[in-house]
Amino acid sequence: MAGREIELIPRMKGQGYGPEQVARRRAWVEERTGARLAQVGATLYAGPELRGNIENPIGAVQVPLGVAGPLLVEGERARGLFYLPMATTEGALVRSYERGMVALTRSGGATARIASEENRVCPVFPFPDVARAADFARGLPRHFPALQTAADATTRHGRLVAVEPYPVGRAVIVNFRYTTADAHGMNMIVKATEAACRWLVAHAGAERYLILSGMSGEKRASGWLLPGGKGRKVTAGALLPRAVARAVLHADPAEIEDAWHHSVVGHLMAGALGHNAHLANGLAAFFIACGQDVANVANSAVGITHFERTGEGDLYASLTLPSLTVATVGGGTGLPTAVECLSVLGCRGGGKAGKLAEIVAAALLAGELSMAAAIASGEFVAAHETYGRNRPAAG
Amino acid sequence: MAGREIELIPRMKGQGYGPEQVARRRAWVEERTGARLAQVGATLYAGPELRGNIENPIGAVQVPLGVAGPLLVEGERARGLFYLPMATTEGALVRSYERGMVALTRSGGATARIASEENRVCPVFPFPDVARAADFARGLPRHFPALQTAADATTRHGRLVAVEPYPVGRAVIVNFRYTTADAHGMNMIVKATEAACRWLVAHAGAERYLILSGMSGEKRASGWLLPGGKGRKVTAGALLPRAVARAVLHADPAEIEDAWHHSVVGHLMAGALGHNAHLANGLAAFFIACGQDVANVANSAVGITHFERTGEGDLYASLTLPSLTVATVGGGTGLPTAVECLSVLGCRGGGKAGKLAEIVAAALLAGELSMAAAIASGEFVAAHETYGRNRPAAG
Amino acid sequence: MAGREIELIPRMKGQGYGPEQVARRRAWVEERTGARLAQVGATLYAGPELRGNIENPIGAVQVPLGVAGPLLVEGERARGLFYLPMATTEGALVRSYERGMVALTRSGGATARIASEENRVCPVFPFPDVARAADFARGLPRHFPALQTAADATTRHGRLVAVEPYPVGRAVIVNFRYTTADAHGMNMIVKATEAACRWLVAHAGAERYLILSGMSGEKRASGWLLPGGKGRKVTAGALLPRAVARAVLHADPAEIEDAWHHSVVGHLMAGALGHNAHLANGLAAFFIACGQDVANVANSAVGITHFERTGEGDLYASLTLPSLTVATVGGGTGLPTAVECLSVLGCRGGGKAGKLAEIVAAALLAGELSMAAAIASGEFVAAHETYGRNRPAAG
Amino acid sequence: MAGREIELIPRMKGQGYGPEQVARRRAWVEERTGARLAQVGATLYAGPELRGNIENPIGAVQVPLGVAGPLLVEGERARGLFYLPMATTEGALVRSYERGMVALTRSGGATARIASEENRVCPVFPFPDVARAADFARGLPRHFPALQTAADATTRHGRLVAVEPYPVGRAVIVNFRYTTADAHGMNMIVKATEAACRWLVAHAGAERYLILSGMSGEKRASGWLLPGGKGRKVTAGALLPRAVARAVLHADPAEIEDAWHHSVVGHLMAGALGHNAHLANGLAAFFIACGQDVANVANSAVGITHFERTGEGDLYASLTLPSLTVATVGGGTGLPTAVECLSVLGCRGGGKAGKLAEIVAAALLAGELSMAAAIASGEFVAAHETYGRNRPAAG
Repeated sequence: MAGREIELIPRMKGQGYGPEQVARRRAWVEERTGARLAQVGATLYAGPELRGNIENPIGAVQVPLGVAGPLLVEGERARGLFYLPMATTEGALVRSYERGMVALTRSGGATARIASEENRVCPVFPFPDVARAADFARGLPRHFPALQTAADATTRHGRLVAVEPYPVGRAVIVNFRYTTADAHGMNMIVKATEAACRWLVAHAGAERYLILSGMSGEKRASGWLLPGGKGRKVTAGALLPRAVARAVLHADPAEIEDAWHHSVVGHLMAGALGHNAHLANGLAAFFIACGQDVANVANSAVGITHFERTGEGDLYASLTLPSLTVATVGGGTGLPTAVECLSVLGCRGGGKAGKLAEIVAAALLAGELSMAAAIASGEFVAAHETYGRNRPAAG
Repeated sequence: MAGREIELIPRMKGQGYGPEQVARRRAWVEERTGARLAQVGATLYAGPELRGNIENPIGAVQVPLGVAGPLLVEGERARGLFYLPMATTEGALVRSYERGMVALTRSGGATARIASEENRVCPVFPFPDVARAADFARGLPRHFPALQTAADATTRHGRLVAVEPYPVGRAVIVNFRYTTADAHGMNMIVKATEAACRWLVAHAGAERYLILSGMSGEKRASGWLLPGGKGRKVTAGALLPRAVARAVLHADPAEIEDAWHHSVVGHLMAGALGHNAHLANGLAAFFIACGQDVANVANSAVGITHFERTGEGDLYASLTLPSLTVATVGGGTGLPTAVECLSVLGCRGGGKAGKLAEIVAAALLAGELSMAAAIASGEFVAAHETYGRNRPAAG
Repeated sequence: MAGREIELIPRMKGQGYGPEQVARRRAWVEERTGARLAQVGATLYAGPELRGNIENPIGAVQVPLGVAGPLLVEGERARGLFYLPMATTEGALVRSYERGMVALTRSGGATARIASEENRVCPVFPFPDVARAADFARGLPRHFPALQTAADATTRHGRLVAVEPYPVGRAVIVNFRYTTADAHGMNMIVKATEAACRWLVAHAGAERYLILSGMSGEKRASGWLLPGGKGRKVTAGALLPRAVARAVLHADPAEIEDAWHHSVVGHLMAGALGHNAHLANGLAAFFIACGQDVANVANSAVGITHFERTGEGDLYASLTLPSLTVATVGGGTGLPTAVECLSVLGCRGGGKAGKLAEIVAAALLAGELSMAAAIASGEFVAAHETYGRNRPAAG
Repeated sequence: MAGREIELIPRMKGQGYGPEQVARRRAWVEERTGARLAQVGATLYAGPELRGNIENPIGAVQVPLGVAGPLLVEGERARGLFYLPMATTEGALVRSYERGMVALTRSGGATARIASEENRVCPVFPFPDVARAADFARGLPRHFPALQTAADATTRHGRLVAVEPYPVGRAVIVNFRYTTADAHGMNMIVKATEAACRWLVAHAGAERYLILSGMSGEKRASGWLLPGGKGRKVTAGALLPRAVARAVLHADPAEIEDAWHHSVVGHLMAGALGHNAHLANGLAAFFIACGQDVANVANSAVGITHFERTGEGDLYASLTLPSLTVATVGGGTGLPTAVECLSVLGCRGGGKAGKLAEIVAAALLAGELSMAAAIASGEFVAAHETYGRNRPAAG
C-alpha cells in the first residue's frame, strides 16, 4: 500500500459536527462501501452536541431498551422502589433481571453500601538503576502536598487524596488516587496526574514518566481491583426467605448454595478473577442505557457473588463490586436518551453518582440471583427458549 | 415490603411487543418515575421485531456513531480497505483508532489469521465421591459419538466437536466444544449441551448436572481463555517502518517498545489477565455498532498485545485475541442499525463471521498502536484535551 | 569490581566430588567467611554419589524428620495404612497433619484417583510475521510422528504423547506433552524436546526456537496448571461422619463448610490461584523427606480444596491437585535418607510414582482438614502455642 | 476402618524428644513399615532441641550442600563479596547460580534495596448483613490504638502498624500489618491478631471471627502479593556490560532481552503470577540451607524479573520480590547446620534479616540471569547434560 493512494476519511471544518457535514460524511461512507445508512442517519443527534463524545460522526445506532423492576433498594443514597432501564439485544436478559428484582423486593429489598469512592491513575517513572528508583519511592510521601497542589490546580471536581509508590526493578509505578465527585473522570485525573508528574520531574529527581502503566485497571480485568478498587467499591446484600426463593426463583436456598459451590470451583479452575454469574450482562445493559463508558464493563464486572444458606434455611445473597465506574455527569451522560434513562432512576446530574452506584449494585445482585436460581433449578435453557428467540412465545 | 403492595411492570398480551403496547408501557414508566421518555420513544423499532432481543420494551437508546479508517486488512477472509463504524460516547476514541488504522495502512496493512473457531459450555456433574467422579471422567470419551448425536439433534448450525472432562474433587466439569458457524450461539449450544447432559444422566452414570459451572469464560475474564479460547482465536500483526511510526504515530519504535516494557510490568503488578492497551474500548464500540452481545467485551478483551523493535529499528506490532466472540447472524445482528453497520464492513449475514473477526482484530491492533504511541510520545493527555471535551477544538 | 581480583571458588579435578576435595572446599569457605562448618561436614555423603545432584559440594544440611499417621488410603495403586515421613522445622505441622490423618482413617480412609500423568515443555518458535506463525501452527499436527521419533530417540523412559500449538502474535508456543514413567523427568523431556525442535527447524519451516517459554508452569504458580496439568493430576476425597469431625477435629461439618466459604472469598479477594489451606506445608515436608525437587512446591501447591456439608450433616472433603510432581527414580530419590523415607511408604524405585502420588494427595487432604478445622473451631492459635515453640509443652 | 483397630503412633512422655524416645519411635516405624532407617537415625540432633520444630521426631534427612559465589552485593545492609550455601538435589543448579553470580560480580555487583518490611494476617469477621459489615469496616480505623495495645501486649518483637478493612458481602476481612524484626513471625502475629480480634468482639460490634481467611498470601501464590507484599519487598538490579554478558553468560544483551520478551508472553499465556525464570529453585536451595520455612517458597517465588537492553547495548537486569520471607531468628534458624549456613553469610541472629534479604535477592537475580542466558544462547540442554546426570562429566 505504501505508494498507493490511501483515501482518508474527509477532513471537515471544525471537525465536521454540523448536520450537513454529518450527512455528507455518511454519504461518503455509503459511496465507498456500498452500504445504505438510512437508519443510522435517522438520529436524534443534530450534530454539534456530539463534540467531545465522538469523532467523524455519521449518525447513531439504536439499541432496544426495556425496563425491569420493581427493585426495592435500601441504600444510604438510594432508597425506595426503582424501575431500571436496560439496553440490550440479548433475549431473556431483562426478564431474568426482573425476576431477581421481584424476588429481592418481596424479600424486603436489597441493602447497598459504598465503601470507597476513588479513581486512579498509575504512571511509571523509569530510573537508571534500582538505587535511584528506591530513593525516589522513599522520597515520594513528603512531596504529597506539592503534588496535591499541582494536580488539583488542573481540575475543579477532582482531588488528589493519596499517592502510593510501587518500586518495580529500576522503575517506580505511582498510584495517584483521586476523588472525582459524580464524574468517572479519567480525562480529568489523567490530566491532573500529568501535572503532578511534571512537578516530580522538575523538583523530585524523576527523569521521565509514562503517564499510564496499565496497573490502575482502567478498562481491563485485573486481580488488584478486588482489594485495591477503582471507581466505587460497593456491597449489596439481601436475606431471601426460603418461601420467596422457592416461589419466585423456583429454587431452594440449599440448591442455590450448592450451585454456588460448584460455580466457585469452576471459576477457580478457569483462573477467573472473582466469581459471579453474569455481571457483565447487567452492566452492559445499564451502561448503554445510561450513557456510561461501556468499555468500563471490563473492570466493573470483576466482583464476587456469594450465596449462603442460613441456619434457618433461608438464603443470604451478597455481591461485592470493587470497581463500579458509574457517573451522572460527563462522558455520555448528557446525551438525549441517557438523560432520560438517568431520570427514570432519579439520577440525573450532580450529586447522584453514589445513588446510581447503589441502584446498579442492587440490580446486579438481582441478576446474579436469577441466573444462579435458573442454573440450580434446571430452568436455564427453558427460559432462554421462551425469551431468547426471534419468534412469538406463549404470553 | 413483605405485605406491602408491589407494583409489577404491567404484563401484556403476547409479551407486549406491539407499538401501542410499547408506548403504553413507556407511559407507565413515565408516570411511575416522573421521567419524560420522548427521545427513548423516538425509535426506529416498531415493536414486534424486538421479540427475542428484549423484554418489556419501551423504546431505544441512541449511541453516537463515527467512522474510522481506512484500514488495510490482509486476512484470509477479509482483504482490502475497510472503514469501520464505531459507536461510543468517549471523545478521542474514534480519532485514536483512526490514527492507528492510517499507520497500519501506510505500512502495508495488518495481517490477520484465525487459529480456531469454537464456542464452549462447561456443565458440572456432581457425584457422591471422587471414585465415581473419576470413573465418569474416564468413561466419557467413549460416549462421544452418542453425545454428538444428542447435541447435534437440537441445532442446525452448531456441531459438537469435542468433550473434555475435568475432575474436580467429587465432581466433573466437562468442556463441550462446538462449532457454531456465523452465530455466537450460546443459546444454541447451551440447549445442545443440555440434551447431551440428559443423555449422560440416562446412559452414563451421571446423577445430575448444573448446566453452567463458570469455567467456560462466557462473559467473564479468566486466565484459561488465553490457552483455551472461546469464540475465535485470532492473531493480527504488522511491520511498521520506523518512518511511518514517527510520521503518523509521533513515536519511535524504540520508544514504543520501551512503553510496552513498562506496561507489561504494570500489568504483572496488577495481576491483569494478558496485556493490552485498551482493547475494551474498541470492542465496545464495534460491538454496539454491529449488534454484537456487548457483555462479551468481558471475555473478548482478554488478549496480548506485543511490540517488538526489529533489528532494523522498525516495529513489529502484534495482537493475540483468544476469545473474540463476533457474529453476523443471530442476536442483535438483524436490528436495523446493526445491519447497516455490518454492511459497511461487507459482513452482513451468513458466512461472514470469520471475515468480521479478522477486521475487528486488525482494527483493535490499530487502537493498541495508537494508544501505546500516545503514551510513549507524551501526547496522550493533549489528545484527550483536543477531542475529549464538549467544546470546539482547533480543526 | 571490574579490574579488582575476584576470588572464584576453587575448581578441582573431576569437579571435586572426592571426600578430600569436599573437605578442602569446605575449609576454603570457612577461611573466606570465618564460619565454622563442622555440622555441615558431619555428613553421610562420602562425595562421588553427589555427582548429578549438586556442584561445589561442601557437605549436607540436616532437616528434622518426624512421622505422621496412620493414614488409610484407598487408591488404585496405594491401598492400606501408611505412616508418612515429614521433614520440616515448623512446629505443630506434623501434629496437625497427623490429626487430619487420624480423622480420615477413622472415617474409613481417603480415596485417591489419578486423572492424568504427563509432563510438559513449552518452547517458543519466533517467526517474522503472524502469517508464517499461523502456517507453522497449522502444519504442526502432521509432523507429530516425526517429532515423536526425534524426541523418543533421546530417552528410554519418556514418550512424546501430544503436541499442541499456541500462536501468540508472530510466535508459536508448542506444548510438548510426555509420559515420563516414575521420574519427574524435566531434564529428560527438555532434551527430547530440543531434538524435536531441531527437527522442526530442519524440516518444518521453523527458523529458531527458545527451549523454554515459561508457559509450562514448571516451578511456578500459574492458572493454566489447573485445567492443563503438569506431572500428575490427582483427586482425593473422603466422607467424614459428623461424629468423627467433632471428636477428632473439634469442629462440626457446618462450621468447617462455613470456614471454607469465607476462605474461598479471601482467596478470590487476593487473586490466589486455586484455593487451599496450606498445601505448601505438607508438600515441602514430603518433598524434602523423599528427595523430591523441592522447588516443585511452587507448582504442586496450586490446587483446590473443597468442603461440603452433606444433607445428613456429615462432611465431604476433597482435594484436586493438577500438578503434583513426584518421582521415585532420578533426582534426589537415590540419596540415602530419601531412599529410607521412600521405603517407609513402600515407594522405592520404579513403578511406584503413581502410588506415591496417591499417598501424598491423601496426606495433603488430611492437612487441609486439620487446618480448616483449627480455624473453624478457634483452636488454631492454641495449637501453635502448644507445638510451635521451642520449649516444653504439656505432654 | 470404623470398628477396626487403628494403630496410632506411640505417644510418649513430654512428647518424646529424648534421644532414646526418638530411637524407639524410629524402631517402631521400622517395624510397622519394614523400612530400615539407619541413615535417618545418623543425625546431629540429640533430641530435645527439636521441640518447637517437629513432632514425632525419628531423626533427620540430609540434603546435599554446595556453595556458589562470589557474589558482590551493594545493598544497604549487605555489602561486599558473599559465598552462598545452597542445599539441593537438582544437578546444575549450583553451577548455574554461580555463573550468574560471577557475571554480576564482574559487572560491579548487584544493588539491592528493601522497600518495606511487614508481615500480615487477614482474619475475617462475618456479620448478619452487609449494613452491619459496612458499619464495622467504617468504624475500624478509630479502634487502631486499642488494637495496637491488644496485639502488642502478646509479643516482644512484633508491632501492629496498620489495619485495613476489606468489606466482602456481609463479612469484613481485615488486613493486620505488623513489623516482626528478624523473625518471619507468623505464630507471633497470628497470636497477636487473635488478641486484637477478641478485643473487636468485646468492644467493637464484631460477632465472631475466623483467624485466617487466605487473603494474606502466606504460603500460597496470589496476585495481591505483588502490590500488597508480605515479608520483605526487595528489588535488586545490575547493569551488565555487553562484554561480560557475552564472556560469562555466552549471550548478547539483545538475545537475553529477546528471550525475556518471549518468556513474558509465555507467562501471560499461562496466567502466571509475575514473571521469572526459576526463582523457586534458588529460594528452595537457600531456604533449606538456612533453616527457613521452606513452604514460604510458594509466596516468595512470586516476583518479576526484567531484562532491558540499554541504548549502549548493555543489559540492565532487575528483580522485584514483593514477598521475600526470610528470618535470622526463630523457626529452624537455630538448628545446627542452619546456624553454620547463616554464618557463612554473616547473617546469624538478631539484626540480620534485612541483610539476608538483600543477599538472597541479589543471588536470585544471578540465577535469573544465568537461566535466561542459557535459554537465549541455546546452551540450556547442554548444561544440564553436563551437570544434571549421575555420572562423571568432563572437568
